[in-house]
Amino acid sequence: MTQPTAQDQRPGTTKTLLKGIDGAGTVRRTVLPGGLRVVTETLPTVRSAAFGIWVGVGSRDETPVLNGATHYLEHLLFKGTKTRSALDISSALDAVGGEMNAFTAKEYTCYYARVLDRDLPLAVDVVSDMLTSSLVRQEDIDTERDVVLEEIAMTEDDPGDVVHDLFAKVLYGESPLGRPVLGTVDTINALTRDQVYGFYRRRYRPENLVVAAAGNVDHAKVVRQVRRAFESVDALGRAETAPAAPRGGTRALKTAGKVEILDRPTEQAHLVLGMPALARNDDRRWALGVLNAALGGGMSSRLFQEVREKRGLAYSVYSYTSAYADSGLFGIYAGCQPKRVEEVLGICREELAKVAEHGITDEELKRAVGQMSGSTVLGMEDTGSLMSRVGKAELCYGTHLSVDELLGKIAAVTLDDVRSVATEVLGGFRPSLAVIGPVAGKRAARLTEAMQ
Amino acid sequence: MTQPTAQDQRPGTTKTLLKGIDGAGTVRRTVLPGGLRVVTETLPTVRSAAFGIWVGVGSRDETPVLNGATHYLEHLLFKGTKTRSALDISSALDAVGGEMNAFTAKEYTCYYARVLDRDLPLAVDVVSDMLTSSLVRQEDIDTERDVVLEEIAMTEDDPGDVVHDLFAKVLYGESPLGRPVLGTVDTINALTRDQVYGFYRRRYRPENLVVAAAGNVDHAKVVRQVRRAFESVDALGRAETAPAAPRGGTRALKTAGKVEILDRPTEQAHLVLGMPALARNDDRRWALGVLNAALGGGMSSRLFQEVREKRGLAYSVYSYTSAYADSGLFGIYAGCQPKRVEEVLGICREELAKVAEHGITDEELKRAVGQMSGSTVLGMEDTGSLMSRVGKAELCYGTHLSVDELLGKIAAVTLDDVRSVATEVLGGFRPSLAVIGPVAGKRAARLTEAMQ
Repeated sequence: MTQPTAQDQRPGTTKTLLKGIDGAGTVRRTVLPGGLRVVTETLPTVRSAAFGIWVGVGSRDETPVLNGATHYLEHLLFKGTKTRSALDISSALDAVGGEMNAFTAKEYTCYYARVLDRDLPLAVDVVSDMLTSSLVRQEDIDTERDVVLEEIAMTEDDPGDVVHDLFAKVLYGESPLGRPVLGTVDTINALTRDQVYGFYRRRYRPENLVVAAAGNVDHAKVVRQVRRAFESVDALGRAETAPAAPRGGTRALKTAGKVEILDRPTEQAHLVLGMPALARNDDRRWALGVLNAALGGGMSSRLFQEVREKRGLAYSVYSYTSAYADSGLFGIYAGCQPKRVEEVLGICREELAKVAEHGITDEELKRAVGQMSGSTVLGMEDTGSLMSRVGKAELCYGTHLSVDELLGKIAAVTLDDVRSVATEVLGGFRPSLAVIGPVAGKRAARLTEAMQ
Repeated sequence: MTQPTAQDQRPGTTKTLLKGIDGAGTVRRTVLPGGLRVVTETLPTVRSAAFGIWVGVGSRDETPVLNGATHYLEHLLFKGTKTRSALDISSALDAVGGEMNAFTAKEYTCYYARVLDRDLPLAVDVVSDMLTSSLVRQEDIDTERDVVLEEIAMTEDDPGDVVHDLFAKVLYGESPLGRPVLGTVDTINALTRDQVYGFYRRRYRPENLVVAAAGNVDHAKVVRQVRRAFESVDALGRAETAPAAPRGGTRALKTAGKVEILDRPTEQAHLVLGMPALARNDDRRWALGVLNAALGGGMSSRLFQEVREKRGLAYSVYSYTSAYADSGLFGIYAGCQPKRVEEVLGICREELAKVAEHGITDEELKRAVGQMSGSTVLGMEDTGSLMSRVGKAELCYGTHLSVDELLGKIAAVTLDDVRSVATEVLGGFRPSLAVIGPVAGKRAARLTEAMQ
């Protein structure tokens, strides 16, 4: 593990953060003027390269009136720059068969492309141009507003999606992490060009960006291309500006026993049951990962076996964790017949209680460790995954773990570690609940009652 | 291109179908007794292997009362064999971090796993055991019936999914390709153990199976493992049985101007507009692929530009082709505000008409060829995609194309080829339409009227 020092982060510095084997897995970072970081991971056995620019801004950075602005802006950066129209932007990568897209999360936004290695300079050019030189014209704001409203409507039509937003609201309430990334119809309709453009100019600053590339790439060449792209539009900063530190803070989230039910005429009832969990940097996260795998991470997990295999109560049932800088959550999702919500909920709560009291078995530990290790290694073959790993590590953690270090962390988890984290997290809070489906009247009242 | 001969297909024969470069892209086939084919493609630069068994049976092989039986059976093969419980099956691959799953389509069913190369023997064992020795017990039938009903309910809750089933019904009517892969609540409720088990025993015969593996694999070893797995449960056939020929036939599908509207209280109206297109083996498929890319295949495509970029009418809009042995279809999907369905439909029809009359531009041709070529090459790095390509090629085409041959086919497409196929396919039938959304009364009547 490489802990960053002020020294390493000085603009102009290039540092090898991880030394790979046979050229694979070498991670290097160069800091450019303005604190712009360029991080690469090499995988010389492939012919592709993934390239992404990570921006340390997400929906949690929005005030209530700006809710949805980060994601709206992400759309607007595809609409044209000083030198490229929207069609120029999309044509460039379509023409070489590259994939280009972007996503907005609660703590970051990422613009990325995956291309054949020979087309990497093109990807660097186009994505850097979008990031630094988008016009965000009034006419783009007007047209794209409708597109974002359509995206909100499409999401509304998928209750299995919406229930996760509802659960975030249950746990985080009116605070920023409780608001939807897409915003609402009202906030999107109210946003002005000045607000969105101001947000862009304030937030997309070089010290807040991480440029990441992975695959068959040469670090020095990538740095030269990025530098040229940013310099040509005067988008680098002063030589002495250091990169922004990873988002920090701690927040003692304590929501317990809260229930929200949205009555909708869907076929299934969609539910998420869960509680506050661990922040991103928490050392217990490896143990929580193992616990999550054993409880609801695969077909052999307890929830899959109890809810689906033995009783046929759901098609989709799983558990998951979400981690932010200062807090996190643990959730169980299930979709089932509305008349079976109480039965499904009862089984999920029972399994939570069992694990909180007794932990998991030795066999489950071994299987979960195998599951996490295997999927970690399998994930190393995809340049897009590598790029995401190295970009997020730089932006959110400020440290990089090699595959061997990662596997070591997973292998080191003991039964006691899992039992402690199960007691503290799953046993530490009365679960909260979000439900979307045809659940109203007495059934809704009983559900709410049962959670108290 | 390798055309198969009766000679090559004789049990006991091993043949190199494609010679790779530096060991990558070598495709070999061995035919085992009973006509069981084992096909592998090597990619020695990775550490993973993908393994799949393709069965030449899909929902189009079902009679109306058996509708959904193929997919139901796919679920049941995970429920236990003579020597493994459901938990044994899922635990085996979870424990090594492998992914295992299956899918059922209209013409085939596939059971697959992706694992680290050293775990390939385990994957071969487990998947072969499921295929050959599942018990399909009455109790499994009972529990899994509920799971399949939940899957149907979940799909019903996603109108963007259901509209594709509705469009298949519009084009194919009451014939097998017009029925949903999942079946209906009624057919699933009526299916008995005898029907499903009978279907299994009749259809899962060695001559109807293709075993495919790709990645860091050794052909001879894979063949030995598969032979051992099948032999040990006496699941190979007679030495002289030849593999089943690819599904054939031609069907002059002629649906034109048909409209189906499902009135539902969704946020968006989801529509598919389209017409009969090309069967899988049609030589014009490369030209249709180019046409599809230019019309609705990416962000630079005409539909994306006209519907989304310029007018903000949809978040998701694209065109696609589906090809079966004897027929195929071309479709345009869009999701939009219900009040804008007529406008969106008007634009899509206009773009269809323009392309049918004038074809595409030279610039669009170049971009589409680049797009298809680039994504073909990028797809070669994923062992799962390679396994699917080689498995489907063997089962459905009976021939294998190397990447260079594929790229050659794409590069050879001319403007005239595209114009001909545009005229014949897009201009050959009055489009048909499927809509799901809050569209009823006068608006529905106007829509239906407009399509005549």
